[in-house]
Amino acid sequence: MIRRIKPEIRILGFDDGAFVPKSKNSVPVIGVIFRGGKFLDGAVKTDVMVDGMDATEKIVKLINSTRHKQQLKVIMLDGITVAGFNVIDIKQLHEKTGIPIIVINRKMPDIKKVEAALKNLDNFAERWQAIENAGEIKQAVVNMSDRSMSDVGVDVEQRKIYFQAVGLDDMKAREIIRISTTHSYIPEPLRVAHLIAEAVTKGESGGRA
Amino acid sequence: MIRRIKPEIRILGFDDGAFVPKSKNSVPVIGVIFRGGKFLDGAVKTDVMVDGMDATEKIVKLINSTRHKQQLKVIMLDGITVAGFNVIDIKQLHEKTGIPIIVINRKMPDIKKVEAALKNLDNFAERWQAIENAGEIKQAVVNMSDRSMSDVGVDVEQRKIYFQAVGLDDMKAREIIRISTTHSYIPEPLRVAHLIAEAVTKGESGGRA
Repeated sequence: MIRRIKPEIRILGFDDGAFVPKSKNSVPVIGVIFRGGKFLDGAVKTDVMVDGMDATEKIVKLINSTRHKQQLKVIMLDGITVAGFNVIDIKQLHEKTGIPIIVINRKMPDIKKVEAALKNLDNFAERWQAIENAGEIKQAVVNMSDRSMSDVGVDVEQRKIYFQAVGLDDMKAREIIRISTTHSYIPEPLRVAHLIAEAVTKGESGGRA
Repeated sequence: MIRRIKPEIRILGFDDGAFVPKSKNSVPVIGVIFRGGKFLDGAVKTDVMVDGMDATEKIVKLINSTRHKQQLKVIMLDGITVAGFNVIDIKQLHEKTGIPIIVINRKMPDIKKVEAALKNLDNFAERWQAIENAGEIKQAVVNMSDRSMSDVGVDVEQRKIYFQAVGLDDMKAREIIRISTTHSYIPEPLRVAHLIAEAVTKGESGGRA
């Protein structure tokens, strides 16, 4: 069975800015609305606390109040934590927004290490529940075929990434990942959200550091 | 004579965020580095004062210190003022960075109105000099041929915009404008810088308000 996903499906991808670990600061979380892997249609912003408990609620509120909401078909996250260990409960995020969620992990997350870190924080049970609610971690293969990478001697390369999905099946999630991955090995909404969030908090992003 | 400009020429486009007029606040100015009209490569940020005198200096410093500098071929601005009447002197900006500048104006600027407004502020002579240094305002024609606009019944449309250029000839400036205008009637680096700066300051951008 072939499912057609529109190449310009609207995806809202989030990433957090830089912050001082263990501080009591708030950290901007930037969301960019992308048409598939093609171009930016708009952006949103909220702020969450370093190692806080407010990320799920803040992002739910942001999504439910944006004028883009009706067009949004998928939310993408780069891992399920922002601002340190402020864990996003993607099951709740899906239930409260009605929008499917795809979480991308560049590497297989080390759950033992996450568990140990969370044990040093308050509200362990609730944070751990959010980790469990994210569900099974699966693999996807992306084609990194961007001409911009030819500078560094790379033309086309296949690469394995990891994902979790709530509110859509794995086949559809893989198709959306494939469609939206156009200029690196992570989907464009996350690549761009990262570059923006970093520039906003550090003054600069991209290029070779 | 045909001059070939690389379709992925790196352009740094700036726009300012929202602000309270006549306040003593600072306003973020976001710069996005684009490959032609295609995709984002990085971003930069600085802050300038509402109706202040610091925009030229701040933007010079930002450009001269970014690790992207060597790759940058053009700087684009959306008008020559940011944060109200903080005027960017593009002649200075070009001289101090060595990079050509293109200023885009959606409409023909009303210079009489600008002059009257500047007369209400301190440092009139210096601000006015920056206006004069921006040089002659010329026309360019762009093709608005984005499929995203088919929602609103538009397929292809030609539109007139206005520009000023320092450090490159008009033919080259028009070619760069044409290459970089891919999803609306203004060049993509400016369209995206605007959407990001607005989201950062207002929490949301894009879509239909």
